[in-house]
Amino acid sequence: MDEIKALFFDVFGTVVDWRSGVARALQAYGEANGLEADWGQLADAWRMQYDPYMEEVRSGRRAWTKLDQLQAENLADAFAALDLPSPSEPERQELALCWHRLDPWPDAVDGLARMKNKYVVAPVSNGHISLMVNMAKRAGLVWDAILGAEIVHTYKPRPEVYLGSAAALDLAPGQCMMVAAHAGDLAAARHFGLRTAFVHRPLERGPEGKADDPSKADADFFARDFNDLARQLGC
Amino acid sequence: MDEIKALFFDVFGTVVDWRSGVARALQAYGEANGLEADWGQLADAWRMQYDPYMEEVRSGRRAWTKLDQLQAENLADAFAALDLPSPSEPERQELALCWHRLDPWPDAVDGLARMKNKYVVAPVSNGHISLMVNMAKRAGLVWDAILGAEIVHTYKPRPEVYLGSAAALDLAPGQCMMVAAHAGDLAAARHFGLRTAFVHRPLERGPEGKADDPSKADADFFARDFNDLARQLGC
Repeated sequence: MDEIKALFFDVFGTVVDWRSGVARALQAYGEANGLEADWGQLADAWRMQYDPYMEEVRSGRRAWTKLDQLQAENLADAFAALDLPSPSEPERQELALCWHRLDPWPDAVDGLARMKNKYVVAPVSNGHISLMVNMAKRAGLVWDAILGAEIVHTYKPRPEVYLGSAAALDLAPGQCMMVAAHAGDLAAARHFGLRTAFVHRPLERGPEGKADDPSKADADFFARDFNDLARQLGC
Repeated sequence: MDEIKALFFDVFGTVVDWRSGVARALQAYGEANGLEADWGQLADAWRMQYDPYMEEVRSGRRAWTKLDQLQAENLADAFAALDLPSPSEPERQELALCWHRLDPWPDAVDGLARMKNKYVVAPVSNGHISLMVNMAKRAGLVWDAILGAEIVHTYKPRPEVYLGSAAALDLAPGQCMMVAAHAGDLAAARHFGLRTAFVHRPLERGPEGKADDPSKADADFFARDFNDLARQLGC
């Protein structure tokens, strides 16, 4: 316990409610363009494209590319999946920026501020530096540094992201704890030697969606939200 | 004016008083080891080695190496310059960490917090991420992100440091303003398209040392301290 020096946070789903914010932006675009759709479903379809596009970078087939660009490209696939006409490329570039404007879960700002008093706190996200900075300024999230994908030019769950983030702080992996609402992210972090904390976000995939369940996760800590985690960590 | 979105800060000398903090650490080491010296002069001698060691990395002759390691090596040269016996390598590694524990100038914490309300604020320093994070946590400096040398793996005044820091925020160079107490840093930033602000730190090199003079600097803003700069920027 005492050896943990830094908390690394997954962001999309763990700190912020990506689905509501993305659906809201898609709805605004759709209504302005006379489209009708289930905007939450379209947000889900967009999110489904997230991993295959990152895999091109992880595999080395594609040079380092920031998430904004990947999202602007794969939004066309999401619209196609729902038989909707794709926005133009400039419109997709603009829509991709909605990932910078996601709202934090209600406990995230306070809980993070509490944990920052005792630990170095940093996003270790697949979101790039500008996205993390814009989101944090808008939402009032207080980070000590922006770590994660961009500083190592590849995407989670590649080991470089976890290990490079620890190395950037001159810490051993075991001095860092990954905080996430996703069992897969935590499994990777644990495999590479980090401590792990699962935070349950039951609404991440909407009221009818299936969020990751604590019973499926292997973690050192299990928390209901960021304030619960702060309490467990003595912050 | 309205187009400036981010303020980039030089740190050693501009945000923190490196000479006093370094001299204090050297004195503590010296007294514990029965040495007598002018500790401010030894701090100056150490600082003199800063640039030639970074030049090895800038030139490509040496792979990216964090400042802690360069400082641990070149501290031996500084002791030799004053005819003092060199600390051991572990002692030099430990002494190099004193650069993480430098005190901010009296106006720096408040002025920075004011500027953060209106701008993205980030160190664009030759200090690495862990150094900047440790310094900020100890001193109460509030950064939005840690940019600068480590994210591009070379040292100022190489263009990559200024331009890579702007690119990390998805900003054009002209949307970023370099804030420094050093004419050379500002000249480089201006050459690469950034806006510039000179902050006068007359005691940077000690009461008898020669700090950079505003009359030698070419800058868009000239400020007495961070609160003066905040006022000029309407923060």
